[in-house]
Amino acid sequence: MPTTTPALSLPSAGAPFEAIALERRDLRDDDILIDIAYAGICHSDIHTGRDEWGPAHYPLTPGHEIAGTVAAVGSAVTRHKVGDRVGVGCLVDSCGGCEPCKDGQEMFCTKPSVGTYNSQGYDGEWTAGGYARQVVVSERFALSIPDELGLDVAAPLLCAGITTYSPLKRWGAGPGKQVAVVGVGGLGHMGVKIAAAMGADVTSMSRSDAKAQEAAEMGASHHIATSDAAAMKAARRSFDLILNTVSADLPMDDYLRLLKPNGVLCNVGLPMQPYSVFPFGLIGGNKVLTGSQIGGIAETQEMLDFCARHGLAATIELVDASDPADVDAAWDRVTAGDVRYRCVIDTATIPEG
Amino acid sequence: MPTTTPALSLPSAGAPFEAIALERRDLRDDDILIDIAYAGICHSDIHTGRDEWGPAHYPLTPGHEIAGTVAAVGSAVTRHKVGDRVGVGCLVDSCGGCEPCKDGQEMFCTKPSVGTYNSQGYDGEWTAGGYARQVVVSERFALSIPDELGLDVAAPLLCAGITTYSPLKRWGAGPGKQVAVVGVGGLGHMGVKIAAAMGADVTSMSRSDAKAQEAAEMGASHHIATSDAAAMKAARRSFDLILNTVSADLPMDDYLRLLKPNGVLCNVGLPMQPYSVFPFGLIGGNKVLTGSQIGGIAETQEMLDFCARHGLAATIELVDASDPADVDAAWDRVTAGDVRYRCVIDTATIPEG
Repeated sequence: MPTTTPALSLPSAGAPFEAIALERRDLRDDDILIDIAYAGICHSDIHTGRDEWGPAHYPLTPGHEIAGTVAAVGSAVTRHKVGDRVGVGCLVDSCGGCEPCKDGQEMFCTKPSVGTYNSQGYDGEWTAGGYARQVVVSERFALSIPDELGLDVAAPLLCAGITTYSPLKRWGAGPGKQVAVVGVGGLGHMGVKIAAAMGADVTSMSRSDAKAQEAAEMGASHHIATSDAAAMKAARRSFDLILNTVSADLPMDDYLRLLKPNGVLCNVGLPMQPYSVFPFGLIGGNKVLTGSQIGGIAETQEMLDFCARHGLAATIELVDASDPADVDAAWDRVTAGDVRYRCVIDTATIPEG
Repeated sequence: MPTTTPALSLPSAGAPFEAIALERRDLRDDDILIDIAYAGICHSDIHTGRDEWGPAHYPLTPGHEIAGTVAAVGSAVTRHKVGDRVGVGCLVDSCGGCEPCKDGQEMFCTKPSVGTYNSQGYDGEWTAGGYARQVVVSERFALSIPDELGLDVAAPLLCAGITTYSPLKRWGAGPGKQVAVVGVGGLGHMGVKIAAAMGADVTSMSRSDAKAQEAAEMGASHHIATSDAAAMKAARRSFDLILNTVSADLPMDDYLRLLKPNGVLCNVGLPMQPYSVFPFGLIGGNKVLTGSQIGGIAETQEMLDFCARHGLAATIELVDASDPADVDAAWDRVTAGDVRYRCVIDTATIPEG
């Protein structure tokens, strides 16, 4: 008999959150039941919840930055045991047999992969995310959270951490490299911390200097206000890698000009309009425009271990969900860019529905 | 006293070629005088000569695919001697001291580098290219042409060869890799040959199947007619690397869809309109859109040696320049895509001007 758990749910696009009793499946052999402690609020939750990324399936419980402890395990579970500190990110299933799965890139599974919420599982059921007190997932998609990391500040690593770690690693952020991180928000503040921990010389970039001091404390050695045309011009041909975490429509050509020859501009924010790119801006300088989508399970574990080793975690504001309207308000603040730097729901406060 | 050499010259944009007596500088200590045997016709010559790439400087002698023999050397020359078989590509000078120069990427010299024609040298003089019987260049920018390569079929390697070799090498064309080459023309036919020699599984792509058989003879294992929507759809998620040699405005999104996750679309043709790129087309699959501009001097030598070792060279049509109007006609045929696969001027036929 399926169990239920208190959860926040959107009944339809544009409606406010309501507390419900969310049904979770009985444990399969390879499943674990997680008592969720914290769930980060990702901008993707908002785009999806507000139906901005194509038709969403309602009622919808978002949340793919989940941290908690194992409460029960299925009969065949070997990776986790009751009491273990675990996290769940953006993925809860994949075929396991295709080339990307075998390469540890489950997000590109050809079947395709199953998202943590608003996604149809291989059993046909719609998935529901982490704005809840409990979740059931296959043990393969649960990560171990090192003891050094608090569950509250670890939760955002499951999306914001891996989304920045993966491209920084792929594109060689490290000693001797000039790395810029555009946008100092939920993703960007992790980008600054991780790039600095990797040994790169980090420049934070945002519209104004308002976050310059805090970015410096996170590891940035320099800051550029992108509204300062002279500073943007002076920074031309400066960077080996630019990680753009902004999902607004930025002029790609202006950022490509900031790259050294062979430099890389990697986008992890998803704007609504197509990029317009001047061809010679890529060809003249062998420059790279690319994007990066989260990361695979093994790399997510590697990122968590890296963060633990370097004493890194998200800088958060805790959200009490006793009144679900406060989560709606947190969403509005995320949309306004008014959060320093990630809102995290204290899921124990989610009321009985 | 400067010497003169018979050369072809455009007196102004849109005018036909005329034979002139072109002045070449006296040999400096590090200069060599080359008796040009052959000069390839590159599409860039046409764009520049017809004033399509910003204001050109007239009178203009194009040509940056030059092959010949050393006729004289300056007092300090050590790399080449009289009688040596040499080539000159797109560059004739660079500062030598900046980071790109020290990295062997003279084309990205910050001073900047000096092009073989339509470029102002560090002495203030305008450079004139290879549609001539002789040229004077610094020995640093003259490549050794291996004995295995005929000078006529080697000439196009100095631009078409290095322009395709460099990105194929950078992006890992080799055994186990699926590589597509878009456009089977001057650049593309070299791309097919070089990618196949590197050990990749090569697919040629052009509007129709007209060149499929010849592309197969050059090393392509498969051919896709890009006008065949069903074939394009069937090829989705197939390639590790696509080298696009077409300078027409192609829909980047359609080609990005053909890439596997982490795949690379590299443009070497230069279209007139900005690329329009759907953001999720890059982010969903960690895909790379990039460009590549010729290659440095050391890598150009490496490419010539590679071609000699693998028995590769350009497939050419020889152009007799006794009547300069025949070179105008050859330009029209290049523009129409009607050449198999590179026109090369027999410079000995250039009349006295």
